[in-house]
Amino acid sequence: MTQQLVLDERDAPAWTEETDVIVVGLGCAGAATALEASAAGAETLVLERASGGGGTSALSGGVLYLGGGTAVQQGAGFEDSAEAMFQYLMAACGPAPDEAKAAAYSEESVAHFDWFVAQGLDFSPVFYPHYSGEPPTDDGLVFSGSEGAWPYVEIAKPAPRGHCPKIPGAAGGLLMQKLCAAVATSPARVVTDARCDALIRASDGTIQGLVARVDGATRSIRARGGVVLTTGGFIHNDTMLDLHAPELRRCNIRVGAEGDDGSGIQMGNAAGAATLNMGMGSISLPIHPPKSVSRGVLVNGQGQRFVNEDRYMGLLGEQVLYHQDGTAFLLFDDANFERPAMPRDLLAVGETWDEVGQELGLPPGALEATMRLYNDAAKHEQDPAFHKRPPYVVPLDQPPFGALDCRVESSPFAAFTLGGLHTNEWGEVLTPAGEPLPGLYGAGRATSGLAAPGYSSGLSLGDGSFFGRRAGRRAAEQRRS
Amino acid sequence: MTQQLVLDERDAPAWTEETDVIVVGLGCAGAATALEASAAGAETLVLERASGGGGTSALSGGVLYLGGGTAVQQGAGFEDSAEAMFQYLMAACGPAPDEAKAAAYSEESVAHFDWFVAQGLDFSPVFYPHYSGEPPTDDGLVFSGSEGAWPYVEIAKPAPRGHCPKIPGAAGGLLMQKLCAAVATSPARVVTDARCDALIRASDGTIQGLVARVDGATRSIRARGGVVLTTGGFIHNDTMLDLHAPELRRCNIRVGAEGDDGSGIQMGNAAGAATLNMGMGSISLPIHPPKSVSRGVLVNGQGQRFVNEDRYMGLLGEQVLYHQDGTAFLLFDDANFERPAMPRDLLAVGETWDEVGQELGLPPGALEATMRLYNDAAKHEQDPAFHKRPPYVVPLDQPPFGALDCRVESSPFAAFTLGGLHTNEWGEVLTPAGEPLPGLYGAGRATSGLAAPGYSSGLSLGDGSFFGRRAGRRAAEQRRS
Repeated sequence: MTQQLVLDERDAPAWTEETDVIVVGLGCAGAATALEASAAGAETLVLERASGGGGTSALSGGVLYLGGGTAVQQGAGFEDSAEAMFQYLMAACGPAPDEAKAAAYSEESVAHFDWFVAQGLDFSPVFYPHYSGEPPTDDGLVFSGSEGAWPYVEIAKPAPRGHCPKIPGAAGGLLMQKLCAAVATSPARVVTDARCDALIRASDGTIQGLVARVDGATRSIRARGGVVLTTGGFIHNDTMLDLHAPELRRCNIRVGAEGDDGSGIQMGNAAGAATLNMGMGSISLPIHPPKSVSRGVLVNGQGQRFVNEDRYMGLLGEQVLYHQDGTAFLLFDDANFERPAMPRDLLAVGETWDEVGQELGLPPGALEATMRLYNDAAKHEQDPAFHKRPPYVVPLDQPPFGALDCRVESSPFAAFTLGGLHTNEWGEVLTPAGEPLPGLYGAGRATSGLAAPGYSSGLSLGDGSFFGRRAGRRAAEQRRS
Repeated sequence: MTQQLVLDERDAPAWTEETDVIVVGLGCAGAATALEASAAGAETLVLERASGGGGTSALSGGVLYLGGGTAVQQGAGFEDSAEAMFQYLMAACGPAPDEAKAAAYSEESVAHFDWFVAQGLDFSPVFYPHYSGEPPTDDGLVFSGSEGAWPYVEIAKPAPRGHCPKIPGAAGGLLMQKLCAAVATSPARVVTDARCDALIRASDGTIQGLVARVDGATRSIRARGGVVLTTGGFIHNDTMLDLHAPELRRCNIRVGAEGDDGSGIQMGNAAGAATLNMGMGSISLPIHPPKSVSRGVLVNGQGQRFVNEDRYMGLLGEQVLYHQDGTAFLLFDDANFERPAMPRDLLAVGETWDEVGQELGLPPGALEATMRLYNDAAKHEQDPAFHKRPPYVVPLDQPPFGALDCRVESSPFAAFTLGGLHTNEWGEVLTPAGEPLPGLYGAGRATSGLAAPGYSSGLSLGDGSFFGRRAGRRAAEQRRS
């Protein structure tokens, strides 16, 4: 092998140092892992490839998907329960959600929120009444999923669960500033500009440590408890995208820090770990905010509706990219025209829907047929096909009519990968037979998390930190002398 | 690890025997591998878990997807070229087909056909004019893909490429009888009732051999050239399906011999191989033959059309299961009603399309709108939405109207898995970094092949045998003393 991602301990350089737990990567998952491992008394070393911590988490909107009745939910006047949160996650997170992860995450969500507060984060108990992965205010609570939209609203009692640290705009920077500060004052040691090249394995398959390059020197570091990979996804690795998630290459906004090149996934996989959901991504089609844009109608390349437009942008993006071949148009009449906050080109205008359809190159008559059916029911505030909520179900029958671009190649689509190493609910990396791979742990987008597909904003920071903490604890418990 | 799928050579039982090439599994891919490895002068051992060879291949329709101008194509009066075959495969086989595999397979397809003839197989140069994965006659050539349907017909010159050995009905049994007979007369040695438990690995990662159980005894067999995994897919492993391909569990016909439990995929993965397309399957929705069923109209759970009905059943099944949530209905009017060869329940009958739609529980007015649009264009033999071919584009306007069941839970859907170990065009199993994993090879449905998705019948027997032969040759070349 030209590039050895895993070395037998007999062939590896002699140990230059040792510790209890090695955490690879200092994003939200890595920071949470390090804090918990060192709090559990384990000597903890964090290796970060960049010259400082933060990673993709620091570039994010900083929303944490949490619920079950947090102080912020209560303060803002919302009732929630672990049960409702679990039901929503099981309904929304794809055809085969990880029940054990969803249950643990829901049951301990209030405690996980409190943990963030204990790390110095402040959340304003004020509800921001728009869909958003990134509220422009310092309000602390948003709907960052499709809880209020059909069919989820009929399955689980809806509550907003997007928790945003108190700062206007993208809060990921603040989040990581606080978490990195907490790590800095913890006993955990952080080494930056440290690139992990290979895992070191014993003959029985146990991961013993790793080889890293620090300041041009090769270090061979033994981990008595385990190695925790929190290295992020692979949105910046074109070869991996082509192989595993080719649809994501069509998206024009790639969400991720430079380090999201899949290195940790490859190392874990080379060491014998299974991967999961490698084809899945979070794909956002941001037509909201404002929420009133939901009064528009989305059609595909055949001029057909395919979704209730009041779903969250994560579910809309998945629908368009995976199921409508990346093509959609957002239709309005004159009375309801509304520009989404994130600009989209006006592709066609006409006095009739046929004119608009013709300009868009849709099959003759298709748009007219679609809008006649929609408007007939909308007059009675009904949407029998997709059950959009009444405030947004209004006839679009006042010309002129227009269509905004929602095609993946020519309008904003934001993507990052959701697939990665297969882990259990304790953050243990699993073999293809479903057994823990001794000595190897993972969290964050280096692993397959709660949503794949079925993304709600805040699930990556949320499950990364939650299962990172569990991985840190478990690795600390497993340390040998 | 409770179940060790890979052992370090220091921890493995002492070698009880050695050979050049070990082939695990004796289906079509395994037989082809063994024949080629032994023809190349390598001492070859085939381990088959069942009490005889054949595997899933023997249960199949026996169709081989081959082209480029074979003797059968020429004899039946069809022109084809490697270029046209390559163009079709690149267009049909999903969003990111393996170009190197598609090129090799197309360029050497005529020679591969001749190789089958040399193994004693006889093909009648007669065209069977219906779509079928399993012609009921002994005709030798069928359209087993969507070559003549839009959009492929505009991309590549169509030719039938489904080659069927000369026997009426399911020809897989005959195919494997001939191949197993060829193996029996070759120098390769076959051991049946032999279960491979683990691969044996050297400290540098090279696969050295394997541990098998034969007649209750543990054998530790060294392979000087390599181990070739041809163990089949995982359609009979519910745990793997739940994790990797949950949609396939909804299909009520699982195509595969008992051994398709993913064991080879798991061993390769545990040894550090990458997997690919694990979520993909071949999903057949057999509404043809007869081809005239294409005059019907398929609609989804919203009463909308979504595909040209003259596509091959493989592409129809994928569309319905992956993109229409497993729900479809096949509509006819009285004048064009036709029963598919594989029976489907008549779910609704009515004097108007509205009546039919109501019985099916579709949104009010949806079916009427869909059929009005369809019929208006069909009167001019046009299908502007999905470009179905003229002979099948006829107005469905003669009551009574009816709908046949094409839902995945309640009507025939046949599935097997297409994902597996990542291999290159030489049958070498690859690491996550894209490098060959020394000593490990694979072919057939233990690997990710040509189509994933975008299945045409005959691609599994075809790519399994083709890349199996290449793997056998490569492993033979690599043998050390």
